[in-house]
Amino acid sequence: MHTVDRPACELCQTTGGEVLHQAEQFRVVLIDDANYPGFCRLIWQDHVKEVTDLHEIDRMLMMDVLWQVETVVRDVIQPLKINLASFGNMVPHLHWHVIPRYADDAHFPAPVWAQAARTAPAEALAERKARLPALRMAMAEHLASYR
Amino acid sequence: MHTVDRPACELCQTTGGEVLHQAEQFRVVLIDDANYPGFCRLIWQDHVKEVTDLHEIDRMLMMDVLWQVETVVRDVIQPLKINLASFGNMVPHLHWHVIPRYADDAHFPAPVWAQAARTAPAEALAERKARLPALRMAMAEHLASYR
Repeated sequence: MHTVDRPACELCQTTGGEVLHQAEQFRVVLIDDANYPGFCRLIWQDHVKEVTDLHEIDRMLMMDVLWQVETVVRDVIQPLKINLASFGNMVPHLHWHVIPRYADDAHFPAPVWAQAARTAPAEALAERKARLPALRMAMAEHLASYR
Repeated sequence: MHTVDRPACELCQTTGGEVLHQAEQFRVVLIDDANYPGFCRLIWQDHVKEVTDLHEIDRMLMMDVLWQVETVVRDVIQPLKINLASFGNMVPHLHWHVIPRYADDAHFPAPVWAQAARTAPAEALAERKARLPALRMAMAEHLASYR
């Protein structure tokens, strides 16, 4: 079990966010980031470092799920742009960031890891946050067939 | 032609780096970044915004190529970690960053778009830069079957 082998890995030890769907090989979580309502992560269940360390069939599953997550975030949150990233520098346990971006968000057009450029308007953030119940439902529905 | 339709798009107008392989539907370029020798980009040829805007067969091609690029960068550059990202906030034309990372690089463990944490040792950078001729050859060889 990875939880025994990797006691120090945060993503082996914790869910890493609010679980929207848990399958045998992965989970999709919602990140509680005040600047980025709808920020999701796709986390591979096993402690694997790089995409190219996965068997092809697992890689295809993971990427299929990533496109499902992107699709649901686009449909429900309707961002200007989707940002995708897989780093794993701090936690070398395969996970993907799926981040809805807007022209008025805190860092646009820079990546969210850059210096903040502004404070996003509170009204816009509140409006985006109001879509989270719909995102939770849509994500669970779309991913239900992945056991 | 996208070059006519999108005169303002940098990735329609320029190669976006040193071309390591040009196929009909994509190109792989080497980025001249003093801090990150071996930083590659996979650029989709058409002006498409999001991965989920691609037809499935094109998406599968693009991702297959991305894993080839990751594999070659890992084999030749031998980084501590690979970072993958697709943003398109500044240039909404589908492209992937493939960045070899090391514990002593300028931003580690933060993403390369964060504030620099240090100056990477000149010797280490020189050693990584010395692998670029091998990277150019290996990438061209590995991608040769993609026409």
